[in-house]
This record gives sequence, structure tokens and C-alpha cells, in this order.
Amino acid sequence: MPRLCKPAMNAPEHVITLEETLEFAAQAHAGKPQLALALRLIRNTGVKKRHIVQPIEKTLHHPGFEARNRIYETESKKRTPQVIQEALNNAELRVRDIDAIIYVSCTGFLMPSLTAWLINTMGFRSDTRQIPIAQLGCAAGGAAINRAHDFCTAHPGSNVLIVSCELCSLCYQPEADDVGSLLSDGLFGDAVAAAVVRGEGGVGIDLERNASYLIPGTEDWISYAVKDTGFHFQLDRRVPGTMEPLAPVLRELAKDHSWDAGKLDFYIIHAGGPRILDDLAKYLEVDREVFRHSWSTLNEYGNIASAVVLEAARRLFDEETPAPGATGMIAGFGPGITAEMALGTWAADGAPRTFA
Amino acid sequence: MPRLCKPAMNAPEHVITLEETLEFAAQAHAGKPQLALALRLIRNTGVKKRHIVQPIEKTLHHPGFEARNRIYETESKKRTPQVIQEALNNAELRVRDIDAIIYVSCTGFLMPSLTAWLINTMGFRSDTRQIPIAQLGCAAGGAAINRAHDFCTAHPGSNVLIVSCELCSLCYQPEADDVGSLLSDGLFGDAVAAAVVRGEGGVGIDLERNASYLIPGTEDWISYAVKDTGFHFQLDRRVPGTMEPLAPVLRELAKDHSWDAGKLDFYIIHAGGPRILDDLAKYLEVDREVFRHSWSTLNEYGNIASAVVLEAARRLFDEETPAPGATGMIAGFGPGITAEMALGTWAADGAPRTFA
Repeated sequence: MPRLCKPAMNAPEHVITLEETLEFAAQAHAGKPQLALALRLIRNTGVKKRHIVQPIEKTLHHPGFEARNRIYETESKKRTPQVIQEALNNAELRVRDIDAIIYVSCTGFLMPSLTAWLINTMGFRSDTRQIPIAQLGCAAGGAAINRAHDFCTAHPGSNVLIVSCELCSLCYQPEADDVGSLLSDGLFGDAVAAAVVRGEGGVGIDLERNASYLIPGTEDWISYAVKDTGFHFQLDRRVPGTMEPLAPVLRELAKDHSWDAGKLDFYIIHAGGPRILDDLAKYLEVDREVFRHSWSTLNEYGNIASAVVLEAARRLFDEETPAPGATGMIAGFGPGITAEMALGTWAADGAPRTFA
Repeated sequence: MPRLCKPAMNAPEHVITLEETLEFAAQAHAGKPQLALALRLIRNTGVKKRHIVQPIEKTLHHPGFEARNRIYETESKKRTPQVIQEALNNAELRVRDIDAIIYVSCTGFLMPSLTAWLINTMGFRSDTRQIPIAQLGCAAGGAAINRAHDFCTAHPGSNVLIVSCELCSLCYQPEADDVGSLLSDGLFGDAVAAAVVRGEGGVGIDLERNASYLIPGTEDWISYAVKDTGFHFQLDRRVPGTMEPLAPVLRELAKDHSWDAGKLDFYIIHAGGPRILDDLAKYLEVDREVFRHSWSTLNEYGNIASAVVLEAARRLFDEETPAPGATGMIAGFGPGITAEMALGTWAADGAPRTFA
């Protein structure tokens, strides 16, 4: 069964604290009536600091879409190889063992995808499949795991590398001053993450089932306005309330698998914001603490888009070792509004899971 | 076995002939030393006419990236549903039978992907998987077929809808005057295409094997420069020569399947340009005529990017009925330089293929 091995993550070296965020926002939007609400929302995110690829002064300056995208290219090339190597080491595989690369990133646009450069530069095989996904936003981390699961099922014995490169600070738009934009400016952070789904062997989460769900009629709730200045993130105020319709979907998915979504051993959930996690805990009737890896990701890095689920999973691997057979759920949420969900069981070589 | 059913295609209503193309190019770039070569190259493409989503005067005017992308959104919403419905009819399926939508398009950028709108508007199930791919360019048609094949293998009995929406005229850049750009201005056309890969049943091509190949060190040969004015297509002069390294890869793929790439019953090949088809015929040692569906697609619509393989396949279904068990190859080529390849056999319900 395809197995998600321990992810690797790299947070860039430039750090912005909550206090600095509040200060910059207050300066840049002084006197605007929506400022007080925005500052309160940012304070409530629980984000203590974020990591970004450029110093804050450069981040706040918009050099134009072309220059921004060139920074995206430079920074993604600088930061992905090391994280990928670490993910390969975690999976005890070499570059030549990889059969497909799923590259997810919504914060820059390259054609060809970075996958071509990675194959040429890092020595992946020429027959490596490239699956670049740019348009699933924060849901793309879950989607990448699910498509890797599918690929390994379709091609038994193959291994899939997932790379998430989210340089959200490169989508900062100085002119945008609606509450949703101001909140986003205080919420999103940069990160690069990677993980391998092994077709056979390894230590990690056996991927047993995956599913997707689109909340009807919400396609405008999270979106990009594409402008001459690049991607403008647009956030509807109804987004934080989306766990009410999504929790029953997660429950149903678990039930179809003869599991109880409220009684799993681990949860790897997209930390879109504090209300997402709080509401999901409420509707699944689980303790807030079961989402601890998502909370700590949010606190330390902000919402790092598709990289959240990989980083939350990394923390699970790092901070605890679930017992063989421990059951868990992975869920990414993003534009659509789309949920990408998976169910899996902790497993390790030599200690195969026993099926009931 | 997953089966590619008959595609549907729609070419927009505005037509530009070869003569008009030559005339507009000569006017717009009068006096430039590279003009003569560009005009000769355009004349040699064999493209007799192309279809575009706007009248030519509007096409030649660049209203800015934001406005262009809005036109992309409007036109894609206007043109995809009908083609999708036709593809569903061809596959004898309803919208509710579809389990995943693979949407390929490199000529506009929406987040969420058009998949969300299609699900909401056309009544696809809320649990339909969305697989949007924007960064594989012309290779994405082949990639979509291959990922649909994988999805149906991973989820037996499922059905995948492929949608290709390539509005290449919306990437026209009036200022670009290098030979590669001028040639591209005379080569690419607009089209919307769709097809269903059925997990079971139907009439069409049983997808037996798929593969991908990246020609080492060619990542800069076909690319977008992303600028404030949108996507600028960049074409290296070495691209037309890429069939020399790719033909042996196609041969090897067929050989691994115990087939001879030079002796198949049908070929569905990306019509990137005339030299691609001529060279591939030469290196595979097949008659030029075996690529007739690609040639006629190129002649009538130009290079319609990822839609070429779907339209060439549609012509195969339309113009001949291969015998059950007839063997064939599908190949898309695009940025990377990437080849997405598949091998399949003609099959129909009630006349199952007999395996040797």
C-alpha cells in the first residue's frame, strides 16, 4: 500500500513577528476605518511569527509581476533541492528511485514547471512523470498526497516525490486594503516542503482511501484576481465558516471506511486559520489538542498554503511515533472551496499492519 | 481497461487565413531584417487557417494582462460546457458519472481552476476530483490522457473527463519580434476540446501503457517569460529538431510492450509544426500519411497546443473505424522538452479484445 514517508520542510531565514506585522499594517494603512478590525483579526490568528524569502523591506516593495516572478524562480531553485534531498533521505530512497514528481505551488508561475529544472539539476530519471499543479491553492498539499497515492496504486512499486513551494510573500499587494487582504497579509508565510510516497516499504502513513469535495456555490470565496501586478488573493468573510459543511463530509468519508472521524489516532489538517481548526474540532467533537501539529505550524510559520499538511505531518513523525495500525486523517482545504481528504494507518517495514 | 472515448472539439468562429496572417505580419513588422525568414517559416507551417476567439482586430490589440485574463475566463466559460456535453454524449455518460476532471490549459490562469465553475454549473458531483494542469503546455493533452489512465486504474470503474481549453491568441504579444515569436504568431490557434476516459465499457482506445520523457538539458527551449503583459511564448530554434532524440524513446516504449513503433495501426501525434511530423515519420520509418489526422488538424486549425492530440483522435474516430485490436500510439510534446506517450488498442463493448 502506498506509504507517505516523513516530510522535510524549510522555512526561509527572514522572520517577521506578530508585533512587526501589526506595526507595518498600522503604518501602511493608518487612518483607514477597516484597520482596527484587520489588526484584531491578525492578532486572533495565533500566528506568532512567519518566515519569508526576502527581508521585510523588500517584501513590502512591489517591483512588478515580472520581477516578482523572477524572484520566485530564483528562490524556488535555491530552496527546493535541499528539502527534496532531505525528504528522499527520510524515505531512504535516491533520486533515481523516483517515478513521478508532483509539484504544487500557487505563488509563482513557471512554464515549464520547476519539475523540468529539478529533473535536469538533481539527476532524476528522464522518464520521471511531471505533475505540476498551480490552481488548487492551499488544498494542493492534500491533492498532491492523494494523486501520489493514485499514481502508486496505478503503477505498483513506484515512488512519487511531492514538492510544495509556497512563497506567499511574493503575492503581497501593497495597494490592497480590504479587510480580507489585510488579514491575509498577516496570515500567510513562506515555506518549501517535500515528501515521498513510497509504493512499497518505508515508515509512515499507509494511504488507504482518498476523496475530494467541493462545497457547492463557493467558487468565489477564495480566489486570485489576476492583474498586471500579479496574483491578488481574495478572501471572502464566509471562508472561516466552511468547517460546518465540511465536517459532515469528513465524517461520512471515515464512516465509509468503517472508522469514526471523531475517534482517530492522529489528524493532519490544513491550518487555514484559527477558526478552521477550532470549528473542525467542535463539529468532529474532538479535543482541540488533536490538531496540535496544525496549531504549532500555524503559530510558528503562519498559513504556509499547500505546505501546511506536509509540515504538520512532519511534526507528527518528529514528535511522536504512532503505534502500528494507528488510524488518521489528512485534510487540505483551499479554493473551490475544495477539500482534499485522505485516511491512513501508521505502518512500518517489518511491522506490517494487520487487517481486521 | 481504461478506454479513451471519442473526443469533441470546438473551434471558435473567427477565422484567420494564412494569407491574412502573412499580411498582418508584414504590416506590423515592416522593414525588420528577420521578417523575410519569419514569413517563409510561417508559409512552411502548412497552416491554412486558424480559428480565434475574437475578431482579428481585437486579437492584435493587447488590452493588458488583467483584461486578457478576463477574456480568457469569459471565453472558457462560454465555450467549454457544450464541448464537454458532446464528449459525455460520445462516451454515453452523464455528468454524474464523472469521478475526476483533468483540466489542461496554458493560455490563461484562474484560481480556482475552471473545474470549480464547471462542477457548480454543469452539475458534476461535489466529490469530483479536480486535476488542473497549466504548466505542461502542448504536452498536457498527452499528460491528461495518461493521468486519466492512471486515475481509472487506481479507482476501478471510475470515469475521467479531460478538458483542454487553449486560447493561444490571448497570448499574442504585439511587441515580440524575434523569429521564434513571429513564427508562433503564425502557428498557434484556439480550440476547446474534451474527451472521457471510461473505466469500463464504451468504444475507443484501450489505454495499455503510458510513459513520459524529458529531453535532458532542454528546459529553456520552450518556455514562458512571465511579464506584466502576461505570458510571452519563447521558442528556441532547436525545437523542430527534437524528434531525433524522441523517436528512439517512442521505439523503446513500443518495444517494451512487444510492439514495433514503426508498424502500428494508428498514430495520434502532437502537430507542433511540420518538421515535427516530417521528422518523426522519418525516424520511425513510417509513411508521412500515417500522421494524416495530425496533418489535417495542423492545416485547418494550426497548433492548438494540448488540444491537438484530442482533435487528431477525434478525426481517427470520425474518419475510420479501426479493427478491434488495432494498435496505436498517442504522443504529446511540449515544454520541458517533455513527451507524454501512450500505447493503446482499439476496442468496443461486446467485441472485447483478445489478449495473445
